[in-house]
Amino acid sequence: YRVYVEYRTALGLVGTVLKYLSLALVLPVAVALYYRESPVPFVVTIAVMAGLGIALERLRGDGELGHREGFLLVALTWLAIPIIGALPYLIAGEGTVAHPVNALFESMSGFTTTGATVLGEISFDRHSRSILLWRQLTQWLGGMGILVLMVAILPELSVGGAQVINEEAPGFALEKLTPRIRDTARALWTVYVGFTVAAVAVYYGLHLAGMAPNMDLYNAVAHALTTLPTGGFSPEARSVEAFSPAIQWAVVLFMIVAGTNFALLWYVATGEPRRLVRNDEFRSYLLAIGVVAVLLTTLLFTGLGLSAVPTNVDPIPGDLGNSVRQATFQTVAIVTTTGYASMDFNTWGESSKVVLLLAMFLGGSAGSAAGSLKIVRWLLVRRAMARELYTTIHPEAVRPIRFTGKPIEEDTLRGVFILVLSFLAIFAVSSVVLFLDALRVGLDLSAIEAVSASIATLGNIGPGVGVVGPMNNFLPFSNASKLYMVFLMWLGRLEVLSVLIVLSPAYWKQ
Amino acid sequence: YRVYVEYRTALGLVGTVLKYLSLALVLPVAVALYYRESPVPFVVTIAVMAGLGIALERLRGDGELGHREGFLLVALTWLAIPIIGALPYLIAGEGTVAHPVNALFESMSGFTTTGATVLGEISFDRHSRSILLWRQLTQWLGGMGILVLMVAILPELSVGGAQVINEEAPGFALEKLTPRIRDTARALWTVYVGFTVAAVAVYYGLHLAGMAPNMDLYNAVAHALTTLPTGGFSPEARSVEAFSPAIQWAVVLFMIVAGTNFALLWYVATGEPRRLVRNDEFRSYLLAIGVVAVLLTTLLFTGLGLSAVPTNVDPIPGDLGNSVRQATFQTVAIVTTTGYASMDFNTWGESSKVVLLLAMFLGGSAGSAAGSLKIVRWLLVRRAMARELYTTIHPEAVRPIRFTGKPIEEDTLRGVFILVLSFLAIFAVSSVVLFLDALRVGLDLSAIEAVSASIATLGNIGPGVGVVGPMNNFLPFSNASKLYMVFLMWLGRLEVLSVLIVLSPAYWKQ
Ligand SMILES: [K+]
Ligand SMILES: [K+]
Repeated sequence: YRVYVEYRTALGLVGTVLKYLSLALVLPVAVALYYRESPVPFVVTIAVMAGLGIALERLRGDGELGHREGFLLVALTWLAIPIIGALPYLIAGEGTVAHPVNALFESMSGFTTTGATVLGEISFDRHSRSILLWRQLTQWLGGMGILVLMVAILPELSVGGAQVINEEAPGFALEKLTPRIRDTARALWTVYVGFTVAAVAVYYGLHLAGMAPNMDLYNAVAHALTTLPTGGFSPEARSVEAFSPAIQWAVVLFMIVAGTNFALLWYVATGEPRRLVRNDEFRSYLLAIGVVAVLLTTLLFTGLGLSAVPTNVDPIPGDLGNSVRQATFQTVAIVTTTGYASMDFNTWGESSKVVLLLAMFLGGSAGSAAGSLKIVRWLLVRRAMARELYTTIHPEAVRPIRFTGKPIEEDTLRGVFILVLSFLAIFAVSSVVLFLDALRVGLDLSAIEAVSASIATLGNIGPGVGVVGPMNNFLPFSNASKLYMVFLMWLGRLEVLSVLIVLSPAYWKQ
Repeated sequence: YRVYVEYRTALGLVGTVLKYLSLALVLPVAVALYYRESPVPFVVTIAVMAGLGIALERLRGDGELGHREGFLLVALTWLAIPIIGALPYLIAGEGTVAHPVNALFESMSGFTTTGATVLGEISFDRHSRSILLWRQLTQWLGGMGILVLMVAILPELSVGGAQVINEEAPGFALEKLTPRIRDTARALWTVYVGFTVAAVAVYYGLHLAGMAPNMDLYNAVAHALTTLPTGGFSPEARSVEAFSPAIQWAVVLFMIVAGTNFALLWYVATGEPRRLVRNDEFRSYLLAIGVVAVLLTTLLFTGLGLSAVPTNVDPIPGDLGNSVRQATFQTVAIVTTTGYASMDFNTWGESSKVVLLLAMFLGGSAGSAAGSLKIVRWLLVRRAMARELYTTIHPEAVRPIRFTGKPIEEDTLRGVFILVLSFLAIFAVSSVVLFLDALRVGLDLSAIEAVSASIATLGNIGPGVGVVGPMNNFLPFSNASKLYMVFLMWLGRLEVLSVLIVLSPAYWKQ
């Protein structure tokens, strides 16, 4: 029996990624020193990550990094980093994430920019500032990785119609991992870093202007680090509810940016704003946000979408400003898959929650760090449906599907169909799995809660409803369910098919 | 402005169908006379149906019945018949179906073999025997129509990958509506009538053998009429719970037959049983039933799948025979989309209901009167997924998808993808529509109830959970929601795309 995958080459590259990534841990070390907390968790992790990285790098033979090895590289990278990234939680030993399964969950949730948490208590009493910043940083690093994956690697591997994902940025040959891929990565990272800095400036600026009393520099950095990657982690237990309406509107703005194709933002920065406004996905993205926000505003303003049992939180019915803000914030947080909360939407009525739940399947734009299915896929599906109706009447007609004017290949379209169906099938089965496992351990989970946990993790969104609502956490689940959701976050982040390919027996044979 | 559809030709053929269909109403007339009830509702309906039929037939010009007109014929037939079929309910004026919207709902539910009811009280006190038999008969007639549609017409129109639907029975040219289409229709109807007669014989035979005290001849005929078309209507308020376990097992058997491709059953009858056992869809169909039944049996037997609040109905936990029977019955009733109930599964726990809800998407076999998506489509989707993984690793490989050994064309496969995605999208949107409309009128509907009402009608299944549970009815919905569900039943029955095509503007233009 012979393995036909040059796995040593893939492992070697994983090593290189680990080696460079370990440098990022200098930031939490600095934060720890600044706040006079122990830097040990991060120093140890740096040692492990760099050491393992260098060791793996040595493994690398002369094998080429081909098509197959690309999949392995992607899958392993997103597995190795979250595992090593769990070390700080384990070593720090603070609260619930001192448990290995919880530490892995939190780390995977971070690097996949999911934002689902198993922190029992989010506070500086329970956790050190450096650990809570590390948690934020994992999402920022994860977002950075996802941008390269989405724009440069997956299209090259032709996964699930990823070719269209960034038709704005042409593909590259993975083997020659130089000029163009580096240029693109640099362009995207420039946008990413630029907007992160801008978010810090705006958040902290509002604080300095007296419009956000509790948005200190720590909080400004912490939230900027999880806005741009559509991550959603917050060192505040009440998420963005903890801040003023001015901050909430600023976060809405940056979330919309974060859910936009970064290649398009680069074109805007380089003087071609037309490419953004003419882009089909960007238009549909804004339209989707608009439609959901208006629907939700109506539900909140009329009170129809609120629970029959009144709660003591913000009364919204009849207050247009409040309704618009809460509805817009929650819509944008969900559609961009960021997952922040401006209030506990768990207290809303089931109708509002169902609208949010359905919006979870949209996803932001391709070429961003957003999760879930992404607007472009739904757009292509809708166009393919219209074409099918047309060609059924006119069987002789040949009509390519177009995206921003360019024809889409049929193979790409087929990949999109299969990805959407696979995603939906895994979502449905996972809902039942989580539901039945909860039943097994006696956790009182409702069907809608199970469904929301399934899409919140597979879609890298973060919060669901009920027990996994925005102000709650994923702690009550069994270890088996938590590990299953770790798998779902990994699967969802890598666009499902890349993982399934590596897990398929055919992958390892000739 | 010129209409390019030869609608007169289509209308003319609808007229022919109406003319012949009116003959079927002789049965309820006879039943009315036998039970000394008024035959007026049926006599008037015969007059209207035959009269309109003859009038429409005269409309028919020399236009050819082409591809386009085929869609119109199908859509109009399934609209005209339910509308006229509502007349007996209106004229008889018994109970809730005396209301026009309810009468239309009940009639559409009948002819589409859905089985969702708006009868407030199902009893011989409230309703005449002839009206309740007419209700059963609408399903039997609807099933007969669907067999021809599925096997002979849709494949010809190439709708949603319907070409594979019956790869066992080759397609025909619709224009030459003679020898082969007639032969096939005759073969299918022979199977259909034969098994209906067999069901009457078995049901009534068990009664004569003393194993089914209340299964008199009326009931035997009434239930046989709704078993074979996977209809699910019953003149008993408690559905099949009203009968003995022996009857329940007999019904399970006939439901399994009803959910099988009738072309395969014809081959069995003509000495080629191998074609049945070798058929990929038939195997998957049995496998699906087996998996769901085992899962449900486990849930019932262990009590995990029962509600935390015990009810005074049949206690099942620990009783293997009872668990197996209830689980198998309910599984088969849902997978075949028949919708009968052997007990009120509404009293079960949410987990069991979620399993049933998910099973609602399977559907029986193509080439039967079953609704929903059908096993063959899921089978093709699964195979396409496996192939996608394979071809992503081996981009140079060309691998057709096979079904029972025969390669499937890519166009057909694309049609299947689009149908599945359209069905799921309409289901999701309809769930929200029904939910919000309930909210509008102050009907206390939960999300899972809205979801179940959506799939129960779109999938032509019948009962859902909660307010639309098997022992309840669709009466509480607003008229708007009821008319919307009438639309969903029509849409679902005609495989979604045929209706959407006729409703698309492009259909009416050159
Ligand atoms: K997120
Ligand atoms: K049915």
